[in-house]
Amino acid sequence: MSFFFAAAVDHSAIILSLFVMLAAAKIMAEIFERLRQPAVVGEILAGIVIGPSLLGWVAPSELITVLAEIGVIFLLFTVGLETKPQSILKVGKRAVMVGVLGVILPFFAGYLIAVWWDGSFVEAMFIGAALVATSVGITARVLGSMGLLDRETSRIILGAAVIDDILGLIILSLVSAVSQGSVSFAGLAKTAGAAIIFTVFVALIGSKVMTGLAPWVEKLRLSKPFFNIGLILCLGLSVASIYVGVAAIIGAFLAGMALAEATEDNDTMHKLTSGVTEFLVPFFLVNIGMQLNLLVFRDTSVIVLAVIVTVVAVITKFVGCGLGAWGMSRREMAQIGIGMVPRGEVGIVVAQIGLGLGVISQPFFAAVLFMAVATTLIAPPFIKILFAEDNDKDGVPDPFIEQDISEKYTRIG
Amino acid sequence: MSFFFAAAVDHSAIILSLFVMLAAAKIMAEIFERLRQPAVVGEILAGIVIGPSLLGWVAPSELITVLAEIGVIFLLFTVGLETKPQSILKVGKRAVMVGVLGVILPFFAGYLIAVWWDGSFVEAMFIGAALVATSVGITARVLGSMGLLDRETSRIILGAAVIDDILGLIILSLVSAVSQGSVSFAGLAKTAGAAIIFTVFVALIGSKVMTGLAPWVEKLRLSKPFFNIGLILCLGLSVASIYVGVAAIIGAFLAGMALAEATEDNDTMHKLTSGVTEFLVPFFLVNIGMQLNLLVFRDTSVIVLAVIVTVVAVITKFVGCGLGAWGMSRREMAQIGIGMVPRGEVGIVVAQIGLGLGVISQPFFAAVLFMAVATTLIAPPFIKILFAEDNDKDGVPDPFIEQDISEKYTRIG
Repeated sequence: MSFFFAAAVDHSAIILSLFVMLAAAKIMAEIFERLRQPAVVGEILAGIVIGPSLLGWVAPSELITVLAEIGVIFLLFTVGLETKPQSILKVGKRAVMVGVLGVILPFFAGYLIAVWWDGSFVEAMFIGAALVATSVGITARVLGSMGLLDRETSRIILGAAVIDDILGLIILSLVSAVSQGSVSFAGLAKTAGAAIIFTVFVALIGSKVMTGLAPWVEKLRLSKPFFNIGLILCLGLSVASIYVGVAAIIGAFLAGMALAEATEDNDTMHKLTSGVTEFLVPFFLVNIGMQLNLLVFRDTSVIVLAVIVTVVAVITKFVGCGLGAWGMSRREMAQIGIGMVPRGEVGIVVAQIGLGLGVISQPFFAAVLFMAVATTLIAPPFIKILFAEDNDKDGVPDPFIEQDISEKYTRIG
Repeated sequence: MSFFFAAAVDHSAIILSLFVMLAAAKIMAEIFERLRQPAVVGEILAGIVIGPSLLGWVAPSELITVLAEIGVIFLLFTVGLETKPQSILKVGKRAVMVGVLGVILPFFAGYLIAVWWDGSFVEAMFIGAALVATSVGITARVLGSMGLLDRETSRIILGAAVIDDILGLIILSLVSAVSQGSVSFAGLAKTAGAAIIFTVFVALIGSKVMTGLAPWVEKLRLSKPFFNIGLILCLGLSVASIYVGVAAIIGAFLAGMALAEATEDNDTMHKLTSGVTEFLVPFFLVNIGMQLNLLVFRDTSVIVLAVIVTVVAVITKFVGCGLGAWGMSRREMAQIGIGMVPRGEVGIVVAQIGLGLGVISQPFFAAVLFMAVATTLIAPPFIKILFAEDNDKDGVPDPFIEQDISEKYTRIG
């Protein structure tokens, strides 16, 4: 019957795309796991291979982007479920330091590169803003698959990512206002205030409310009550956070955190949620890879610019966030620094906004896009190495066997 | 950051729609569970309430339709996971009888109504075809939530639904060919042959192949290997079945069945899969409700036609399928008859095809749409009652307490 069904609404093409994306992602994940490399890198590369750059089997589309967005929302919801609010509050000060320093350095470095590369003032501001945006989804995925989300450094990274997103919002608001020629500081303060109040309020109150409501949820006649209430809360806070101005994933993370205590021993709820995440996250990862059109790099100068932007993006975030964790061990500083490096979909979106407003040129757009995908590919292997070392020794770091990163990479890789 | 994100690609509206649909579905599900009515009915009614007919908060869209389609695909995959091939083969002959009689009666009744209502020959053929199409998703959902998918009558319904879909394909191919003025019996035979060979081949071979591959799947380094292989198989066979001509849900059901034995004791795999199903099925149910625009019923004659078509659709399917189960107890015949009544999304699609080909008029389109939604709302309470009786008595039906259906309805409702 569905031949006609397909003829009527053409779903066969969409389901075929989803099949190709999922199969390619999982084949690459398997290969990368066998090479002892992070599966996320394989799945992003799968997107480059099947996307417009190489095979052209699947093209980015509105529908795939929405599935990818829901995927990363569920990823952060799942991470939130394993993160109790106190565990973030405990590392709060350090997370703020990491977030703030990890924003300042990349912003100014990005600004300076663009000015030096003959970019306009507004263009330079935009490149700075694009270098700020950390995408915590990739790091969360790698740490989650290693079972290390409860580490102190993991929690600092998660907290810093929330700070990073709020600061990124403020910078992007400022830069967009400048590019439109009208800066209202009252408007900026309102944007920033709403974002901060929403985030802090939900973080502080959410868990208490949901823990209080838990006996009531248990009494619902609905099948799988905690899972369904969790889904509604996750989508609801995602929408709310978009309206407030921060990323949907911040709302999803807060929703998960609000339910972390109430569902701590609810294994069924965790498995149902991770089923949705496991199904949708490959579309998020493959979609990142598909954004990269390698054809723009026929121009050598674009390659040079892209490499410079990427190197600066990695170093400034690594050093900025690492310094923010001053007082911890060198390895912990490195763990936090590298964990904040991936720019992923957030960097891509900032570049798209710049292009949409007509304030950045094609070479800068291509360079930022490359940087967003490249940082996302570069970070995971180092995250795996820097965190795996601890894991081998049951979480007790031994300063005497600290080695050069490249050496570790060779040994484990 | 996502304020701009939203501005750039407007995902906030989509995520808001999903939130509204999910929240409305679950509120109605809770209310219906408390009234001891099937949750599916509440979720479909939620679609009527928030859809264009009443509140107009959410409108049907391509994206929602795709999510709904993936939802029903996963629903049938989950059902397949709990259905071993032998259990269907054992009831094979009876399922064929139920399927065939359940197609013949509604087709001729639909044809005769339309002729009597001054419909053209082609129009009458199309109404007949629309009355044929059983949507097994609704029944599977109700039986699954009652934990009764392993019943003999449940398995007959599942097997008959596959037969029904193949016969429906053949009839729709024939009717479409007639409406285009060119009937190629060689083409029809090819369509029918491909559908039958694909279904029988996958049903017979799938389970052996996947059971043989199980040790190999277990050795994969990929996280959640059975779940991921299952997802790929599910989407792959869904696409394949669309290309062969049968519904995607048939492929998904066969994929689940192929994995039923290999994953029998794999609780994690089952929970991960049902997480995806639980998340997406509400969109499938709400989307059915949203299709119904009550405004077309301002015309009294349309109401009369819609009611006649619905009554005939219920009676002919109930009697046809019931008679197909001749030799079983009266209650079992009634269980099978009522289980095949819902037309759901399949009926809607047939009506849309007819409208698209320009062969059915607006009143008939409205009437078929109403019938598709109404049969889907009418059947579940009776399914619940007819199967619950058995359940109370541990599956041993007692002929002496058989009562009039309306009486049971009052007692349990």
